[in-house]
Amino acid sequence: MDSLDPYLREHAADFEEELMAFLRIPSISAQSEHRQDVRQAAEFVAGRLDDLGLNVEVVETAGHPLVLADSTAEPGMPTALVYGHYDVQPPEPLDQWINGPFEPTVRDGNVYARGASDDKGQLLTHIKAAEAWIRTEGKLPIRLKFLIEGEEETGSQNLARFVHDNKDRLRCDWVVISDTPMFAPELPSICYALRGIAYFEITVEGPKQDLHSGRFGGIVVNPANVLADLLASLTDDRGKIRLPGFYDAVVPLEREEKAEMARLPFSKDAVAELIGVEPSAREEGYSLLECQWARPTCDICGIYGGYQAEGSKTIIPARAGAKVSFRLVPDQDPEAVAQSFETYLRQQMPPGAKLTVRAYQHGYPVRVSPRSPGVQAAKRALQRGFGREPVLIRHGGSIPVVSTFQKELGVDSLLIGFGLPDDQPHSPNEKMSLANFHNGIRTSAFLWHELAGAVSSSRDAPGT
Amino acid sequence: MDSLDPYLREHAADFEEELMAFLRIPSISAQSEHRQDVRQAAEFVAGRLDDLGLNVEVVETAGHPLVLADSTAEPGMPTALVYGHYDVQPPEPLDQWINGPFEPTVRDGNVYARGASDDKGQLLTHIKAAEAWIRTEGKLPIRLKFLIEGEEETGSQNLARFVHDNKDRLRCDWVVISDTPMFAPELPSICYALRGIAYFEITVEGPKQDLHSGRFGGIVVNPANVLADLLASLTDDRGKIRLPGFYDAVVPLEREEKAEMARLPFSKDAVAELIGVEPSAREEGYSLLECQWARPTCDICGIYGGYQAEGSKTIIPARAGAKVSFRLVPDQDPEAVAQSFETYLRQQMPPGAKLTVRAYQHGYPVRVSPRSPGVQAAKRALQRGFGREPVLIRHGGSIPVVSTFQKELGVDSLLIGFGLPDDQPHSPNEKMSLANFHNGIRTSAFLWHELAGAVSSSRDAPGT
Repeated sequence: MDSLDPYLREHAADFEEELMAFLRIPSISAQSEHRQDVRQAAEFVAGRLDDLGLNVEVVETAGHPLVLADSTAEPGMPTALVYGHYDVQPPEPLDQWINGPFEPTVRDGNVYARGASDDKGQLLTHIKAAEAWIRTEGKLPIRLKFLIEGEEETGSQNLARFVHDNKDRLRCDWVVISDTPMFAPELPSICYALRGIAYFEITVEGPKQDLHSGRFGGIVVNPANVLADLLASLTDDRGKIRLPGFYDAVVPLEREEKAEMARLPFSKDAVAELIGVEPSAREEGYSLLECQWARPTCDICGIYGGYQAEGSKTIIPARAGAKVSFRLVPDQDPEAVAQSFETYLRQQMPPGAKLTVRAYQHGYPVRVSPRSPGVQAAKRALQRGFGREPVLIRHGGSIPVVSTFQKELGVDSLLIGFGLPDDQPHSPNEKMSLANFHNGIRTSAFLWHELAGAVSSSRDAPGT
Repeated sequence: MDSLDPYLREHAADFEEELMAFLRIPSISAQSEHRQDVRQAAEFVAGRLDDLGLNVEVVETAGHPLVLADSTAEPGMPTALVYGHYDVQPPEPLDQWINGPFEPTVRDGNVYARGASDDKGQLLTHIKAAEAWIRTEGKLPIRLKFLIEGEEETGSQNLARFVHDNKDRLRCDWVVISDTPMFAPELPSICYALRGIAYFEITVEGPKQDLHSGRFGGIVVNPANVLADLLASLTDDRGKIRLPGFYDAVVPLEREEKAEMARLPFSKDAVAELIGVEPSAREEGYSLLECQWARPTCDICGIYGGYQAEGSKTIIPARAGAKVSFRLVPDQDPEAVAQSFETYLRQQMPPGAKLTVRAYQHGYPVRVSPRSPGVQAAKRALQRGFGREPVLIRHGGSIPVVSTFQKELGVDSLLIGFGLPDDQPHSPNEKMSLANFHNGIRTSAFLWHELAGAVSSSRDAPGT
């Protein structure tokens, strides 16, 4: 293992070259004219893994291909599955880029290009870490599998089915994902929990057409009024969500988690600057970070009905609707929330109004115990990779693939992001810090070593 | 007076001819290519009144002209001012008309044409009634003024200012308006009360742009949630409007009014058929007709914010808004409602959200005492004109000109409509019953007689 660091130093320039080559491929999964470019990126990944002697397959799907790879292994070796994606967001608007989105350019220690941070740069760290082991030690300290998709930016339509149908080939002890930001620059971070989501569209219908509000006002149900009543009934004035039993499954934060959160250098001013308004805890009795990461929410994402143009029109609208998103925390169940939501709304419906509830997205919340062997191994690896004690963070968003792996393979994901909060993924001038790229490779190399001695996260999981 | 009826019978065909000529003029005030047609209709009206020997002026305005006329008068004669409009709604969609909208055609005792009921046919009754008096008795029994506008269908922009600036010329004891429907066929009706209106647009602003609902959900105010809370707070679960003091000025229905309403042949099934949903009293403790005519309402006419297209988008919208209409009843004041509305909403605003309230329309409710001499005179005239006892009705809508006359001239309007509920004003195949046209002329002729002996409604009004 002593020769790892010298190898990484010696090949730093090669790694950057390789990153540039990867970034030059415009693998925009959403745009059909880039179909061949997307395939080229898949083949780039497959080629790198093949060079290392892994068994590699480019798996065709109904959409873009998956790259699946597996190292040789000695009996009893634990297995880590690296998940990542080689596709990128569309680069538009092009006129806001300083350099071309697919002409990677280094400025101030960052490489600017579409996909630099999301996810080519982060993904490549794990391939280069594997290379360092194989070129210096002749073998990997654990069994490594790679599952790299090309549809992450378009909803991973074909991934869940593949995972479901290939549990054996994907069997592992941990999934490792680097596709998230660190909490702050120079603050290596492990994300150990994500929120889930239950997203609905509700519509309320009343009269068969818009009616004159003078002639009929007072004797006909108004769908927009009913909608407002329904939506307002979802939360109380302390920010609590009023669906019966909604909080029953919520696992309270452990004392250590709260203490860890309180230590993080959270800047209220920085958030205010970003969003243009002072952040405020939506639920009484919880800190901002708790509300952002570890408490469920109910947000109206869209609302519509009746006359929306300029000026006045005196009508009772025939219908009105809204998009409503609940972010869920462990161990809330989006299916249970869906049932409770619809029942709760139906009980309030006045005569003459018809309610329709349509569910769009269900994603389970996930949490890995911060004391689990995998997380502890990741902490040690980050400490060595970045030379600084890592922090434990959560994330308010949802990464559906994580709950897919949990459900199908029965294993935890280690979310070790090497991005930074200002990397601008999905926006013009996306970048990745080259220091983080190299520290990421070091971290990954140490992670394989640390995981070799850790206890499997799937040991007690059924079916794996 | 005995020769009135024979005159009306003898000239019935002439009256219909004249109505047809009037209806052939496409006086569409909203369409600038019809500007000359609109003027021609004004001149048609002016010509008829000039033929009767009245002093007539076609008054230019910033828009379409007004026709103002005044009969000679003996000292002490009471004065009635006939208000009406010679402009019509656009006839589109043209392909749904059976005959051309400006090619009046008689079928089953109705004349079909744009403007037949709204308002050319109704307006013409009063001119023909004046003609009958002048041709048979040589003079009118009262002083008659006419104020006929050409912008009613486009918002009467220039009328209020003209009334304000010409109080002396318009001085009168009553305004007479025939521009509303009867309660049912063969049920002559006097409308003695109208609701007022206070119409607002409110917007709630939060973050400076739409935000990711996973990343920021829980720590940022959601304008759509705030909007729903505000709107829901406007009414309680019994349908009462919760603005402080909102009902203080509401004049309760008199026992006789309630009894009169209960006697009307109101058909719940007919309304259900029309609107596609069972009508229901929005305010607990009141009948359907009371809710429709004599109780204030709060209706959301439009609502918008965030993502409205297909599927899901997980955002916290930067802003959301709604159009809100209050229908008001005597003696509620739209200005007071506006103040109370804004104060009530502002008290509820959470930190970080910005409320804007914009007022669009203010219209005062109006009510004439059903026992007033003017209404009693109108009842007697309708009894003689239609040969059937008239009913007293109210209307849930607002006719702003009525409160303008009340405010500027200090006089009541007698709303004696000769239309029918199925006349389809503003829609294809507008019609007017010719029986109602002739009965309307008779009613009007008797009305001049009845008003000659009635006590002025303006006797106690200041400034007139």
